[in-house]
Amino acid sequence: MIPIDETPLTRDGKVLILAYDHGLEHGPADFTGLPESADPARTFEAATHPAVTSIAVQKGVAEAYYPSYEDDTDLLLKLNGTSNLWMGEPDSSVNCSVEYAHEIGASSVGFTLYGGSNHEVEMTEEFREIQEDARAHDMPVVMWSYPRGQGLKNDTKSDVIAYASRLALELGADVAKVKYPGSKAGMEHAVQMAGKTKVVMSGGSKTSDREFLESVKAVIDAGGKGLAVGRNVWQRENPTQILDALEKVIFEETTVDAALEA
Amino acid sequence: MIPIDETPLTRDGKVLILAYDHGLEHGPADFTGLPESADPARTFEAATHPAVTSIAVQKGVAEAYYPSYEDDTDLLLKLNGTSNLWMGEPDSSVNCSVEYAHEIGASSVGFTLYGGSNHEVEMTEEFREIQEDARAHDMPVVMWSYPRGQGLKNDTKSDVIAYASRLALELGADVAKVKYPGSKAGMEHAVQMAGKTKVVMSGGSKTSDREFLESVKAVIDAGGKGLAVGRNVWQRENPTQILDALEKVIFEETTVDAALEA
Amino acid sequence: MIPIDETPLTRDGKVLILAYDHGLEHGPADFTGLPESADPARTFEAATHPAVTSIAVQKGVAEAYYPSYEDDTDLLLKLNGTSNLWMGEPDSSVNCSVEYAHEIGASSVGFTLYGGSNHEVEMTEEFREIQEDARAHDMPVVMWSYPRGQGLKNDTKSDVIAYASRLALELGADVAKVKYPGSKAGMEHAVQMAGKTKVVMSGGSKTSDREFLESVKAVIDAGGKGLAVGRNVWQRENPTQILDALEKVIFEETTVDAALEA
Amino acid sequence: MIPIDETPLTRDGKVLILAYDHGLEHGPADFTGLPESADPARTFEAATHPAVTSIAVQKGVAEAYYPSYEDDTDLLLKLNGTSNLWMGEPDSSVNCSVEYAHEIGASSVGFTLYGGSNHEVEMTEEFREIQEDARAHDMPVVMWSYPRGQGLKNDTKSDVIAYASRLALELGADVAKVKYPGSKAGMEHAVQMAGKTKVVMSGGSKTSDREFLESVKAVIDAGGKGLAVGRNVWQRENPTQILDALEKVIFEETTVDAALEA
Amino acid sequence: MIPIDETPLTRDGKVLILAYDHGLEHGPADFTGLPESADPARTFEAATHPAVTSIAVQKGVAEAYYPSYEDDTDLLLKLNGTSNLWMGEPDSSVNCSVEYAHEIGASSVGFTLYGGSNHEVEMTEEFREIQEDARAHDMPVVMWSYPRGQGLKNDTKSDVIAYASRLALELGADVAKVKYPGSKAGMEHAVQMAGKTKVVMSGGSKTSDREFLESVKAVIDAGGKGLAVGRNVWQRENPTQILDALEKVIFEETTVDAALEA
Repeated sequence: MIPIDETPLTRDGKVLILAYDHGLEHGPADFTGLPESADPARTFEAATHPAVTSIAVQKGVAEAYYPSYEDDTDLLLKLNGTSNLWMGEPDSSVNCSVEYAHEIGASSVGFTLYGGSNHEVEMTEEFREIQEDARAHDMPVVMWSYPRGQGLKNDTKSDVIAYASRLALELGADVAKVKYPGSKAGMEHAVQMAGKTKVVMSGGSKTSDREFLESVKAVIDAGGKGLAVGRNVWQRENPTQILDALEKVIFEETTVDAALEA
Repeated sequence: MIPIDETPLTRDGKVLILAYDHGLEHGPADFTGLPESADPARTFEAATHPAVTSIAVQKGVAEAYYPSYEDDTDLLLKLNGTSNLWMGEPDSSVNCSVEYAHEIGASSVGFTLYGGSNHEVEMTEEFREIQEDARAHDMPVVMWSYPRGQGLKNDTKSDVIAYASRLALELGADVAKVKYPGSKAGMEHAVQMAGKTKVVMSGGSKTSDREFLESVKAVIDAGGKGLAVGRNVWQRENPTQILDALEKVIFEETTVDAALEA
Repeated sequence: MIPIDETPLTRDGKVLILAYDHGLEHGPADFTGLPESADPARTFEAATHPAVTSIAVQKGVAEAYYPSYEDDTDLLLKLNGTSNLWMGEPDSSVNCSVEYAHEIGASSVGFTLYGGSNHEVEMTEEFREIQEDARAHDMPVVMWSYPRGQGLKNDTKSDVIAYASRLALELGADVAKVKYPGSKAGMEHAVQMAGKTKVVMSGGSKTSDREFLESVKAVIDAGGKGLAVGRNVWQRENPTQILDALEKVIFEETTVDAALEA
Repeated sequence: MIPIDETPLTRDGKVLILAYDHGLEHGPADFTGLPESADPARTFEAATHPAVTSIAVQKGVAEAYYPSYEDDTDLLLKLNGTSNLWMGEPDSSVNCSVEYAHEIGASSVGFTLYGGSNHEVEMTEEFREIQEDARAHDMPVVMWSYPRGQGLKNDTKSDVIAYASRLALELGADVAKVKYPGSKAGMEHAVQMAGKTKVVMSGGSKTSDREFLESVKAVIDAGGKGLAVGRNVWQRENPTQILDALEKVIFEETTVDAALEA
Repeated sequence: MIPIDETPLTRDGKVLILAYDHGLEHGPADFTGLPESADPARTFEAATHPAVTSIAVQKGVAEAYYPSYEDDTDLLLKLNGTSNLWMGEPDSSVNCSVEYAHEIGASSVGFTLYGGSNHEVEMTEEFREIQEDARAHDMPVVMWSYPRGQGLKNDTKSDVIAYASRLALELGADVAKVKYPGSKAGMEHAVQMAGKTKVVMSGGSKTSDREFLESVKAVIDAGGKGLAVGRNVWQRENPTQILDALEKVIFEETTVDAALEA
């Protein structure tokens, strides 16, 4: 953990990452409901919304689309990721070096850690190198901390999420992206375990506006610092609308009702 | 993805790669029908046809034959590949470094990714290094994107091909070489998923002139940018004839009939 | 082994390490009984006690909390560690380089070796690099020497502990942290095997004041040089009280009764 | 492939390598019939025969014996090799770096590739590094191309040998050392597949003078460029006699009868 | 093999290494019979005997004790080794770099190779690096050549020992430390196979003075160059006595009777 409140990843100490690496992780299936969502330009466009602190994409998408949006968005390069074409113990390949991420304009980096996987040791060592390389460039590090694999029966249990956020603190991430444990109390536990590391909720699959905003509100009330969201924004016909509402809940700390009205 | 329209890999934004790494991948069997096709010089000769933007070969063939053709052909060095003497989960060894490819005159590089293989993570990490090394030399990167291995039941299904082309975009390839999904609609899906990354069809095993050209025409009509072809050129008695026809379909965008007449 | 009596890791040739890497190794479960113990600041506060020679934490905790305590505590960076979310042969990932530990202010480093594990060879080679890197910075090296894994039926048997302390000597650790073998005689054996390498007892899970101090006293009487303790300090309501008593037993070599009275 | 006709590995474009790495590959058993053959000096002595273009040995033998023969022999350092004490999928360890081979006076290097082995990918990647390191020193590269392992039922089948020689061309070897496929036609196939890469026959186990020379003659007649021979020379009482005959068949292209008469 | 007769590892071309890495390899069990033997200082003291050319220890023992004996002993750093706490195919971890061995005063290095183990390929590649690093420092290399593992039924058979000594020659060791094959003839075979590489006998477990000296005598008579001995020296109450006798047998080439009388 290093102080990151002066970096573009945050706004008033809060974080709203617009994640768009689903083309790699899930493939075309995630774009079926709304074919235009397959176009990265549309999500970059959404990322120009003032509520979005950074857009998180893989190297190839960054190379191809970020140059057109570099004045209006902040780039978080997601350094690892893998397709869902294969099965087996959770693992993720490192697809971009910190050095190259920095070169193409990223101001921060992201890394998925599957704690509990048989690949945990190897992934943690990859994280070590990336974290230390990022420090050399003063780039904040966001950990997608997702316990998963043999041994893990329930990866949204409060204890597991709390362990996930603690891993982020212990290993040196500045922000822990964790799943929503299902309740404000569960999120408080995760926040407490993370110490000075900021905790943000992972948006998950698309739900109704109210249900989604209420989970975000619970996160903020629990001391969480925001959200990393993908499908709940760009799978919607109108990303701006939900981003307006998220801005209210996260940065203005309004009620969900107030956010929905606007 | 980087802009590659000014590089020799393209002509008017289109691509026609003449691939000749079958001696490594398939062995002598591919040359049985036409013994003289075993001689790399014959395929280099064919590559001097103006329709061919680049010839793709392995390091050893490049070292031995490219010096005699460097004024008349453009070299794409295929960096990985493996024999079919062994079985097991699809994998491919890296047989040439980007540095050495550059040194012997290649202007672009190629890499096979078997998404869905148990070796996907390892292959993707090899691709990362190659892609970043290629960027340092401003060399375009072509991904032979072939989902294959455990989990993959049908590697020419439209969804799989669309995932293949998306992998190329996400991971930073400039051109995605994918199998023909069997229809123009399937290819449109693949092209849409690839975003700014150009999609070219993989030629596959030898078929009739008409059948072959019709698939190429469908690719072009679907927004594909061309073809990477091997056996359908150099297994023919007269490679020039089919290259003439391909030039019409790909670069002049004629009908198949018009191309066949010529 | 190098002379370490002039380094902050020791006081009068003795050692009292306050270990706090349980958030990584055991997760939130270790903080359940006393929720405020999850806050690293509380343990750093305890580490300002004059009885504590160094505080041992993982990289992330050091980055986030040590800057506020660098004038009042000495930092031992625990370089490897792993979660208990996964199962399998004992192993531990290297989470911090010596170089980076030095950069953020650590004066010594710690490393867990699971002798007897199927990963012993690999872990020992990681230790080699770390030990030699530490030498280049004149940083003492503490080995958490815990035989564990296939083949090991009883890891607190006197012979196993004695082998553990010998491994530390042979491989070049300055301090061997071993489990308490259950008796003063057992500890004498371990001390004899360690030669010039200092042996300290691992605190283990929380017990009563008397039971705990008596094991510490036995260690000192056996020629051990101190203690590396975690839960028996920070899981107590009042860490200062037990540290006062430990100071008496370890540094003033009083009886347990005298220490308990104070 | 690079032009090697100006290097000491060739004489008039032909090659006769005297191989002596059997002490590593087969152990003392190969010396049983003729105990003095265990002495490397005896084979170095034989290598001073003008018919021998290079002697191929492992690093240790080169270090110990080549200095006494450096004026009269040319050194090909065999970079990998392994004992036959273990079983399992064919593999070979890299026992010498190109850099060190160059330092101790080698003018060319050799490498065994077991195409078809489960270790093919890994061995081919080792070959890549060695080939590129050798290029940096302008040292010719000889591939001992021996398909072997799971999947391979018959490693002297003509198709397998032809694939073996093609692998040498594709991967960048200057000379392919392959087994004798049993006929002149089989060797012609191998030569055709190798393109500009020179093909030499592997001598194999000891046979009669006539049988051996007839296979060599068939190789030359088939367009092969010579021989890499071990046991058929140094297991003979009089190595000079057979080398005289080989000189005739290979370099003077006489009949076997003429060679035997002399 | 390089000329080592001018180095401290030899005396009149002969070698007597006092080995003391048993604390790592066997643990406390080897010291049970004579507890003071656990103290490395006692063996360093013994190593000041003029019969001892070098003392062989692991890095940690060298760091802690060699500084007190550097004027009176020569240090051979044993670079790899492992505990016997685990089971499985024989392997050994590299515990010290050549660079660091040189830095702390070693004049030569030692390495165990388990030829015939499933780890042979990997161990041999580790040996390559170590041997070449040692050459850069002009440090002699001693190979503990112990065929062991799957496939090996009898590791003291004459043929196996002869293969062991040949491996040392082929791979570039200056001295081969092998087990006693049980007879002078067996040792002659091993010596013959080793060519210019010196062969020394491994001392093995403690036996009677006469039995031990007779095996040493047989080694010398067979052309062996000496001994690497541990337990047969430091497990004796009076190491000086047996070293006096060894000096006679090895360096003065007396009979065993004459040596025992003295």
